[in-house]
Amino acid sequence: MGKLTFVGLGLGAEGISLQGIKEIKEADRFYLEYYTTPHEASLLRELERASGREATVVDRPFVEDGKKILAEAKESIVVLGVPGDPMIATTHGELRVRAIRAGIETSIVHGVTIASAVASSSGLHYYKFSKTVTVTRESVPRLTQVYHTLHKNLLEGSHTLLLLEYDTEQGEGVSPPAAIEGLLRAEENFRRGVLKGETLALVMSRVGTRYPGYAAGPLTELRRGEYGRAPHCIVVPGKLHFTEVEAVSAIFSMDSAAVSDNSAGVTRTAQTLVPKYVAKTKRALDQVRDKLGPEYKPVLENAELYMKDAESFLANGEDELAMLSIGYAEGLLDSMNFSGIAQIDW
Amino acid sequence: MGKLTFVGLGLGAEGISLQGIKEIKEADRFYLEYYTTPHEASLLRELERASGREATVVDRPFVEDGKKILAEAKESIVVLGVPGDPMIATTHGELRVRAIRAGIETSIVHGVTIASAVASSSGLHYYKFSKTVTVTRESVPRLTQVYHTLHKNLLEGSHTLLLLEYDTEQGEGVSPPAAIEGLLRAEENFRRGVLKGETLALVMSRVGTRYPGYAAGPLTELRRGEYGRAPHCIVVPGKLHFTEVEAVSAIFSMDSAAVSDNSAGVTRTAQTLVPKYVAKTKRALDQVRDKLGPEYKPVLENAELYMKDAESFLANGEDELAMLSIGYAEGLLDSMNFSGIAQIDW
Repeated sequence: MGKLTFVGLGLGAEGISLQGIKEIKEADRFYLEYYTTPHEASLLRELERASGREATVVDRPFVEDGKKILAEAKESIVVLGVPGDPMIATTHGELRVRAIRAGIETSIVHGVTIASAVASSSGLHYYKFSKTVTVTRESVPRLTQVYHTLHKNLLEGSHTLLLLEYDTEQGEGVSPPAAIEGLLRAEENFRRGVLKGETLALVMSRVGTRYPGYAAGPLTELRRGEYGRAPHCIVVPGKLHFTEVEAVSAIFSMDSAAVSDNSAGVTRTAQTLVPKYVAKTKRALDQVRDKLGPEYKPVLENAELYMKDAESFLANGEDELAMLSIGYAEGLLDSMNFSGIAQIDW
Repeated sequence: MGKLTFVGLGLGAEGISLQGIKEIKEADRFYLEYYTTPHEASLLRELERASGREATVVDRPFVEDGKKILAEAKESIVVLGVPGDPMIATTHGELRVRAIRAGIETSIVHGVTIASAVASSSGLHYYKFSKTVTVTRESVPRLTQVYHTLHKNLLEGSHTLLLLEYDTEQGEGVSPPAAIEGLLRAEENFRRGVLKGETLALVMSRVGTRYPGYAAGPLTELRRGEYGRAPHCIVVPGKLHFTEVEAVSAIFSMDSAAVSDNSAGVTRTAQTLVPKYVAKTKRALDQVRDKLGPEYKPVLENAELYMKDAESFLANGEDELAMLSIGYAEGLLDSMNFSGIAQIDW
């Protein structure tokens, strides 16, 4: 019986795990593709040395077609080595599904993927990273999706990882300055106050290799930097815990006062408005409380009740209900204003 | 000159990379901690065999204190081996920062972390996963945070990974049935229509080891399952691309018709409430329009105006302002109800 094992090669030339080496040793055939990674002359050499096996280097069309791999895996043990984690690119996921449908046993040896390594080595808390986005060459002129993801992430205080596209076959990609330029241009277009020239960002290059590059600073400064070889990532931190401030300042050699909170300036609509309206409603209640007849008591009581609801909804992050409640409380009082029953000076 | 290298051990007993083995070989001292992972008898043995070095197994207080490690790393080459990726737990991040501040050279050899392996092997697209949440024993009774993260992720169509806490020292943790029970209870409490009994979820156990467990189905069915040894994760998929439907059905051996889209039924709070309140306000206006004296005309005009505002705010995605406006419109009318000026049957 055959088998198809996807082996992740992790980052750099020696990122493969012991388990991965063992699978290659036991295989009848070892296919290797590295078209999605910056070509490391040493990767092929290291894999062949450590496994004692010769690799058949294959290209993208070969893996996408997949017929030869599947045919062989029906009868014999086949390993396909893939940089990073082997199940992140859709090509390999599809090949796995085709193998399962063809009744071939499959297994996965995971590898370190760039998104996880960058997030963990940045000094920021890993689980505060929200959705990762990729900056492609086509997206750079507008960055609509990237800008809105950043907005959403910053609102909830989350960190954002931006992977910059690179293409080793073409030797082209998105440089950190080009991506930053695009981000600042997106702010000019959309004007939601998500990014400023002073917004703190981290540029992390070649993470997981022997020569990683770390840079941090305001966007306008990073836009002028030189970052060497790909791959590059940009991290836009959200709300910062004090241990994150300390870590970023130590790792990126910067003064901790310069490690600023990018989420601070980005606020939820309700966070700004509800406290303001609650204060206004309190003042209005004070103005009319002693001047109205007993028939208006239920109005005042309800206005007070809903005003308090608004405060607790806001505290629980129930923004929409907070707004509904404070709107209702104001409406109760203002109705008397419009019909001349009371004079409220909001 | 000394050095401190954090080496990730990845998942399972043979998850360490070649680079990690090399660092251990070159070190003067090899510390190993595995208090956060299910104890694998074979992990220590494999590491010692592959590196030819003896490990000093250390416990949590030793690493948290860190004084001995830092003192040694000033003069000699020290490796600290950590399960998964070495920079995810705050303890190791803090030790790294203390080393940098003490002028000690540090480096990181990344390892595969469970969150990345589960996301990539689920058959779902990796970059559609949004914020990961951890289900701890303390959080299970209410799951407030988890429920709201699920809501937010499903609204945007993202997938959610829930890591279930386990504690190897205590031998306790959160089982998949207990977590699912908690999720369904949270729905009963918060009633936002985020989860139903039929909501599709994946339970993935021991991912990255030789004996992974995969189960998928509706929550009510998964709640009755048995899942063997920890660690366990639950994935709640969001909006599904057809290739994801195919992959999940192949990997989890289920009919593709049963791979349902959990995002489809989840709506924004304002989307549900505003149209309902607008309809009610219209009916209320119809009831009182011809029965009130001219002094109440401004009240009615304003109620109508704000009701229309609510509709256009909603259409523009300005949910908070839509709720504020419709609340205000209702308050204007209800004020007359409370004081006996009008009788509105909402």
